[in-house]
Amino acid sequence: MSAAPAPAVDVAALAALVRAGDRPALARAITLVESKRPDHRAAARALIQDLLPDTGKAIRVGVTGVPGVGKSTTIDTLGSRLTEAGHRVAVLAVDPSSTRTGGSILGDKTRMTRLAADDRAFIRPSPSSGTLGGVAAKTRESMLICEAAGFDVILVETVGIGQSETAVADMTDFFLVLMLPGAGDELQGIKKGVLELADMIAVNKAEGDGLPRARAAAAEYKAALHILAPSSPSWTPPVVLVSGLADEGLAEMWAKVLDHRTRLSATGEFAAKRRAQQVKWMWAMIEDRLLARLRGDPAVRAMLPVLESRVAEGSLAPTLAAEDVAEALGL
Amino acid sequence: MSAAPAPAVDVAALAALVRAGDRPALARAITLVESKRPDHRAAARALIQDLLPDTGKAIRVGVTGVPGVGKSTTIDTLGSRLTEAGHRVAVLAVDPSSTRTGGSILGDKTRMTRLAADDRAFIRPSPSSGTLGGVAAKTRESMLICEAAGFDVILVETVGIGQSETAVADMTDFFLVLMLPGAGDELQGIKKGVLELADMIAVNKAEGDGLPRARAAAAEYKAALHILAPSSPSWTPPVVLVSGLADEGLAEMWAKVLDHRTRLSATGEFAAKRRAQQVKWMWAMIEDRLLARLRGDPAVRAMLPVLESRVAEGSLAPTLAAEDVAEALGL
Repeated sequence: MSAAPAPAVDVAALAALVRAGDRPALARAITLVESKRPDHRAAARALIQDLLPDTGKAIRVGVTGVPGVGKSTTIDTLGSRLTEAGHRVAVLAVDPSSTRTGGSILGDKTRMTRLAADDRAFIRPSPSSGTLGGVAAKTRESMLICEAAGFDVILVETVGIGQSETAVADMTDFFLVLMLPGAGDELQGIKKGVLELADMIAVNKAEGDGLPRARAAAAEYKAALHILAPSSPSWTPPVVLVSGLADEGLAEMWAKVLDHRTRLSATGEFAAKRRAQQVKWMWAMIEDRLLARLRGDPAVRAMLPVLESRVAEGSLAPTLAAEDVAEALGL
Repeated sequence: MSAAPAPAVDVAALAALVRAGDRPALARAITLVESKRPDHRAAARALIQDLLPDTGKAIRVGVTGVPGVGKSTTIDTLGSRLTEAGHRVAVLAVDPSSTRTGGSILGDKTRMTRLAADDRAFIRPSPSSGTLGGVAAKTRESMLICEAAGFDVILVETVGIGQSETAVADMTDFFLVLMLPGAGDELQGIKKGVLELADMIAVNKAEGDGLPRARAAAAEYKAALHILAPSSPSWTPPVVLVSGLADEGLAEMWAKVLDHRTRLSATGEFAAKRRAQQVKWMWAMIEDRLLARLRGDPAVRAMLPVLESRVAEGSLAPTLAAEDVAEALGL
């Protein structure tokens, strides 16, 4: 079953097509970025570097929420509003579990019926292989490609497993947390770490009979956000009520996203955040490479399980174990 | 000003003295752990490994809170209560800023007047050099030495700069957050990330005229904790009122610490947490070594400033920069 040798990628030509907004080229470019073949990886790096001057102009919004919160419906409705207003909207995802689950966003795509049929929108499921770091890096590069292709709104969805919210917050300008209505004991818990990433909480399904419970939930979230030190002197995360299904509150919600951008741009925080995100990303990639080198070393691979279990059971000091690994690597 | 060659450390003898509870030996052992000399580092590793079977028996409590919250006073009063009850109490610290500030805990030591004069207590300022990871590693090893020396309560204080709370939470069984009274707009913000680390919030200075405000603050913190998903099915972080100065509420507060230990021990979570902390520590040490190797490489050192600034300004893709670094390291 050996395939014929694939033709070498013409990076300059692909970049030109992407810039021209050619959709098959856009999809091909993202597939290239997601490929693990060494020649593809080299071509992908060259492509990203080529496109770099045309990136960065979109507003990048991360969206998280538990399954059932109505992420797909809300993104479908919000995205359609935005394309109607003249925007071009790309929906990407970071879901390191999609290998196991069969790709939750592939399912989302069929649920985002309006956006899927909208030629001003582009939906791409999560890269499905590798570590969170690897998946996030590919989504991040896909985002740059979409920007170069002229998409001016990027929505990055995550199902919120493990550290994926942090990864998405690290690549976006604004992090939106969708919550279900409910109050008191029926109020669902906010996952650790998410509250402090939130630039806004939107209580979804604030419609019909659910409205009083949504209002009660919003009041509780507001109180919780109140006692947290705000992440920026220019922004206190608001709590809003929306209904993705009934298309209510989404215009007001989006206005907050734009307001955030205006305020943080005025103080220089917006540009500083982008710069810091890029440098952090570089370091994350370097660490990934170092750890891959470490885990790929035969001597280290052989010793790690023993070291880990001795450290866990308390018969070997972590410092000594680290020393052994460093020696095996010749550091 | 070259010193005479220091005599080699007799690790076995030092370990025996530490185990016997000899205080000068304890202080010497910690100084050894804090030393940067390669021969000292080797001796320190051997010492820790020698003492390892005698470690792990203490209850380890992290304590954080903004300057002015009354950490020293509270620790002094709580620690004295514990030594009166027959415990031996070690107070350590993680304060990576202490090089710059001249050692905030050195000042604390003079303020912990009762404990400083208590021969069942031992106070050690934060190691004052290096990265947070380095400082935390030394504090962690000092904790092990104190345990081997028979201290059964370890209080690890942090002033809460940068990521030091996470480092302290990662080395302790229970993370206590001290807060000032106040409510509504005068309520001080909880630093990002701290709320979710908290196993308990204690509102300090709940005394005299401050009592109503302390109660109002406690109610707000309780509401905020309520909407966070608890970190353990066996534990919901309580909010208590204390006065370190007036010695009020500290017995009840300590009872919660013990209750936490009992509950999590019953389910196996306590042992699992310790195991996970040790493995995480090992990996942190390995990563530290890898990054030290990277930053110590002359070629990498020469290229990093340029790479970082090009990545920050957006003219170089982070992936390409990481690639350059990896190539320079021969990975």
